[in-house]
Amino acid sequence: MKRHSGRDIDCLRPIEIICGYSKYAEGSCLYKSGDTHVLCNATLEEKIPVWLRGQHKGWVTAEYSMLPRSTQERTRREISTGRPAGRTQEIQRLISRSLRGIINLSDIAGYQIIVDCDVIQADGGTRTAAINGSWVSLYLCLNWMKNKGIIRNIPINEQVAAVSCGVFEQNILLDLDYIEDSRADCDVNVVMTSQEKFIEIQGTAENSAFDKNTLDNIINIAQKGIREIIDAQKKAVQDIR
Amino acid sequence: MKRHSGRDIDCLRPIEIICGYSKYAEGSCLYKSGDTHVLCNATLEEKIPVWLRGQHKGWVTAEYSMLPRSTQERTRREISTGRPAGRTQEIQRLISRSLRGIINLSDIAGYQIIVDCDVIQADGGTRTAAINGSWVSLYLCLNWMKNKGIIRNIPINEQVAAVSCGVFEQNILLDLDYIEDSRADCDVNVVMTSQEKFIEIQGTAENSAFDKNTLDNIINIAQKGIREIIDAQKKAVQDIR
Amino acid sequence: MKRHSGRDIDCLRPIEIICGYSKYAEGSCLYKSGDTHVLCNATLEEKIPVWLRGQHKGWVTAEYSMLPRSTQERTRREISTGRPAGRTQEIQRLISRSLRGIINLSDIAGYQIIVDCDVIQADGGTRTAAINGSWVSLYLCLNWMKNKGIIRNIPINEQVAAVSCGVFEQNILLDLDYIEDSRADCDVNVVMTSQEKFIEIQGTAENSAFDKNTLDNIINIAQKGIREIIDAQKKAVQDIR
Amino acid sequence: MKRHSGRDIDCLRPIEIICGYSKYAEGSCLYKSGDTHVLCNATLEEKIPVWLRGQHKGWVTAEYSMLPRSTQERTRREISTGRPAGRTQEIQRLISRSLRGIINLSDIAGYQIIVDCDVIQADGGTRTAAINGSWVSLYLCLNWMKNKGIIRNIPINEQVAAVSCGVFEQNILLDLDYIEDSRADCDVNVVMTSQEKFIEIQGTAENSAFDKNTLDNIINIAQKGIREIIDAQKKAVQDIR
Amino acid sequence: MKRHSGRDIDCLRPIEIICGYSKYAEGSCLYKSGDTHVLCNATLEEKIPVWLRGQHKGWVTAEYSMLPRSTQERTRREISTGRPAGRTQEIQRLISRSLRGIINLSDIAGYQIIVDCDVIQADGGTRTAAINGSWVSLYLCLNWMKNKGIIRNIPINEQVAAVSCGVFEQNILLDLDYIEDSRADCDVNVVMTSQEKFIEIQGTAENSAFDKNTLDNIINIAQKGIREIIDAQKKAVQDIR
Amino acid sequence: MKRHSGRDIDCLRPIEIICGYSKYAEGSCLYKSGDTHVLCNATLEEKIPVWLRGQHKGWVTAEYSMLPRSTQERTRREISTGRPAGRTQEIQRLISRSLRGIINLSDIAGYQIIVDCDVIQADGGTRTAAINGSWVSLYLCLNWMKNKGIIRNIPINEQVAAVSCGVFEQNILLDLDYIEDSRADCDVNVVMTSQEKFIEIQGTAENSAFDKNTLDNIINIAQKGIREIIDAQKKAVQDIR
Repeated sequence: MKRHSGRDIDCLRPIEIICGYSKYAEGSCLYKSGDTHVLCNATLEEKIPVWLRGQHKGWVTAEYSMLPRSTQERTRREISTGRPAGRTQEIQRLISRSLRGIINLSDIAGYQIIVDCDVIQADGGTRTAAINGSWVSLYLCLNWMKNKGIIRNIPINEQVAAVSCGVFEQNILLDLDYIEDSRADCDVNVVMTSQEKFIEIQGTAENSAFDKNTLDNIINIAQKGIREIIDAQKKAVQDIR
Repeated sequence: MKRHSGRDIDCLRPIEIICGYSKYAEGSCLYKSGDTHVLCNATLEEKIPVWLRGQHKGWVTAEYSMLPRSTQERTRREISTGRPAGRTQEIQRLISRSLRGIINLSDIAGYQIIVDCDVIQADGGTRTAAINGSWVSLYLCLNWMKNKGIIRNIPINEQVAAVSCGVFEQNILLDLDYIEDSRADCDVNVVMTSQEKFIEIQGTAENSAFDKNTLDNIINIAQKGIREIIDAQKKAVQDIR
Repeated sequence: MKRHSGRDIDCLRPIEIICGYSKYAEGSCLYKSGDTHVLCNATLEEKIPVWLRGQHKGWVTAEYSMLPRSTQERTRREISTGRPAGRTQEIQRLISRSLRGIINLSDIAGYQIIVDCDVIQADGGTRTAAINGSWVSLYLCLNWMKNKGIIRNIPINEQVAAVSCGVFEQNILLDLDYIEDSRADCDVNVVMTSQEKFIEIQGTAENSAFDKNTLDNIINIAQKGIREIIDAQKKAVQDIR
Repeated sequence: MKRHSGRDIDCLRPIEIICGYSKYAEGSCLYKSGDTHVLCNATLEEKIPVWLRGQHKGWVTAEYSMLPRSTQERTRREISTGRPAGRTQEIQRLISRSLRGIINLSDIAGYQIIVDCDVIQADGGTRTAAINGSWVSLYLCLNWMKNKGIIRNIPINEQVAAVSCGVFEQNILLDLDYIEDSRADCDVNVVMTSQEKFIEIQGTAENSAFDKNTLDNIINIAQKGIREIIDAQKKAVQDIR
Repeated sequence: MKRHSGRDIDCLRPIEIICGYSKYAEGSCLYKSGDTHVLCNATLEEKIPVWLRGQHKGWVTAEYSMLPRSTQERTRREISTGRPAGRTQEIQRLISRSLRGIINLSDIAGYQIIVDCDVIQADGGTRTAAINGSWVSLYLCLNWMKNKGIIRNIPINEQVAAVSCGVFEQNILLDLDYIEDSRADCDVNVVMTSQEKFIEIQGTAENSAFDKNTLDNIINIAQKGIREIIDAQKKAVQDIR
Repeated sequence: MKRHSGRDIDCLRPIEIICGYSKYAEGSCLYKSGDTHVLCNATLEEKIPVWLRGQHKGWVTAEYSMLPRSTQERTRREISTGRPAGRTQEIQRLISRSLRGIINLSDIAGYQIIVDCDVIQADGGTRTAAINGSWVSLYLCLNWMKNKGIIRNIPINEQVAAVSCGVFEQNILLDLDYIEDSRADCDVNVVMTSQEKFIEIQGTAENSAFDKNTLDNIINIAQKGIREIIDAQKKAVQDIR
């Protein structure tokens, strides 16, 4: 089976990571996966959430938003309804948990890092692209802190990356774009560390329920994709001093 | 290892399902799983969401809320903040998808069924209890429609049920209560049909990432629990006419 | 005249009070008046509202809400509109004033008691049922405080109870159910103490204005009903230690 | 006993009613009761609320607001909190019910009259002043409709007026001003028609519960005050053509 | 060209300034410009905004609102939408900047003055009338502070006033009323000090863009109007002690 | 005087306009003025606002937002407060008026064009950059419509552009960057057409009021800058087919 884009079924879209995209953020990258472009800007704040006080810990959190015309049809701004959509909050919580899964929060005690993930262009897989870019900008922010003498070492020794897989006409497709995503029978998002452990797995039957065997195959292919994304992240930051 | 409640590690809490708990709802049950009590009321409305018009389809959706003192510490009402929390919306979407996964929406064309899941008492596992009770009240609502002559047959031939599993001190525990949930290393919610297919799987590393082998074991134990829940649901509705 | 339910015109609906209904609340009861069921949970908090600071006083307040399908037709959740309805706030203020009318707030200095009144099923008279159940749960909460040594004595020496009366086809009916309430010419809610003094009286002409003589008769019959409710409350708590 | 203002205990504050205060409203008056000044503007709209359609009826409703510096201490605008306070909604509902109690809604079928009550200066009794002024502006609006040929006759044959009474140091005081209101043991608002029937009675024990005898005395004195207010209303509109 | 009101093209509407209109405000005036009436009440608060702390400064801010029936057609209250309109915020910012432009904020260190501008009746030019009346009430408030010994001198040595001009059928009209404003080709609001310097200029082409020459003529005529307004302000406060 | 950036006082920052930046928008450009980068995406919708119906007209409107880390310090998302800030609404109205000033709305009857201006990076002058980029994306959108045969000709024969000027240490500076803007004595935004007529002029005294002579000089220099911007816009679209 050939995909509409010509990609092989287990093939990622081309990845491009532009580090330092924004001038002001302590850590910044524009993460591109095909036509999905997410700007990930990490901000360091010397304060922590109220409920964390007195625990000698820091905090990492993420926010997510789509520009109105990042999508094929224009999407109304959330501010026009006065409240963030459920989907937005779900994704923000997912990115936040993924990042907190690979950092030791006591190593940044007294600091909060907020990673803003703003989708400039959306062609499916924006939440996984946001996770992938967020790791890079978090790393860059920690490196900035190290250069400033705020921390001695970068307190992460793992990477985290994410990819989606889905079943379409009996094939398991890696890294769904928008058209594939809207037609898939089921959709599984996998978030893994560079040591190949799960931070998060979210599988949803969109049109038909799936069995354990399918789940196993999906996870295998997702793992292959995540390995490649982790390589791309590594390359993006390897020359950063 | 003995659990603090005395339960075996692969043992569910006692389930009680009181059908017809509310006088007015077309389908109603109070679903109890140990000290977690969720009132699930299905309402039939002869109208459909605007965006579904002209598609000859019906709709099933769910709402979820916790009474302020269902919890050990009182939780503030969401109305006092003016917006539903992200967690609430995430759970509502999960219940809704689970129910829509086992019903053919064209068989209830022109109708919407809203299942209100209100947590009367919460001791962990409220979202899975809500799914389990929702299936019962959806069934009762469809049976009411059949009795009224609105539909000829009950348009579901599968059940759906859900359970959580978690890892605690290297043990995989089935059906976490509140204390266990707050201490677990990871937490996996599994939603399955009576034909043992996945509608949804959501695994989250709370304290440490988990590997594929652990995931497989978790799914095995979850499946055992779901089979027992499905039996309890079946018994609850078997004498309904 | 016989009422549609078969009750005499000056007869209350059967009352059932289940103390300790909720596991976690410091004071809890499910108050049933016929088909109207209200869960009243009192929460003790060791903090007081900001504006009360420095006055050596405590505070008692109440919140009120109806489950969406407590009513014959489903009622939308207030959270879906983003603000509590005027009716909700009016009832919350009424319950709060009724409870504060029989407690000496300086005897619970430094503490706030919040009574959550959640209507599980509604067949008219939910606000008066909420007051009646709230007194019981407030008493239970104060008893809990006494048992914990927080207070020496229960700082209330009166009870408070409420009932509605209305005029329908020239008859004065005690304790209106939903059908009677929606058809009555006028509707009077009376809140009285066990010493037969008014805490609150609210009379509203729904269809036709009423004269002083009618008001006097209504109050007489309301008083009879309130005496019986006060007996029921007393019985409910008499064996509590 | 002399009141701090020098008034007798059963004496109203001086009333002044300026008809036609606003240039644009179909019915307008500035109602002054001592230092309490309420601008009551009635607007005629040729449309009715959605839920009233098909019933061949009109509608009358009221809105109430206080200017921020109508009070001794500045009160924050409700818009700064994003929602109307419970008190505001309670008063709006009270004014609306009072006006609807003396008009036959089918005589203005197809029309809605909105009476805006904006408190310019507040020295206690704003809700009763709003009712009193609203009747005048409603009458003026109906007269405007008659002059325009929209209706043949003014469809009200009763007036409605309101006053507050309270108990202070064993005396029953008529028409409480702000200082008296804040110190009274109880506070009763009475809304009556010119035929001396109740539209609404709201009695609240602020500091101590009150007995039936006190209630009777309060109602007597309130009735005396309402008769005088009704005279003042009558005089205000008697020369209107 | 004669204007529909009979005014000459460079002629202001009659101005009336009633000082001390409200009983409670530290500074109060009702400012009338023809049929446009704005109540301007200045409130002194002994606290400053959080972000100003530690700067040894005071603050002056303004709020603006229109009564619902100040307009020819009734305008809905902003509270019914839950948020202030963009226009409201724009005007509030304009009034605030105008007042802050003529006061030395360090002379009222520790104090905030809030000027509430409530439009009682609107016939065009409400924002400029609000600025003109606000200066008077600000002055009165400062005079009150001086009388109370809070400040030694009134810390303003300039006045500020505003007027609108517009082009209609090739004529430049001073002080547009509602009808003129809605038909003008362009609309320029000028805010000037008594020393004839600009605090603010806002010119907007409504129907056709305008050239530099027109702008110069508009500014000339606006200056003439502002001189007259400044005289009227001066007269209004000259006898205040 | 040399500016901190080395620019001459009457010199614009370098302009770069990348047409077609976004894949999906009917008209799109990234407008860069030095370190200020605004993404302007025009969306064509085949529907018009409700209040415009029946007038045989189209509509053009703009929305404006800043990414949280477009600024030196992170700015909180507006959604976190639930309402757009006053500044945002003011800017949106300014951009919208500027665009509507140069298009004949009856030439796009039945259509609405929404221009989303999202600030990717902010170094002062974001509102003027948004206007400049919006004109380009509006032109591209209209060109797209022409190519699709929706309109026969591009219905604008003028360009519109904007720039800010300010006074700093007696010098008039063209095109203020963030540092200059925050220190300027006054700040004037000028919006002009290619025929050198004003669409909008907004001058604000930040620290000290300014006289007519200064205003004239500012306008002269602004005009010089606008001519250069109009050239840059023209070049950007000249090869578009």
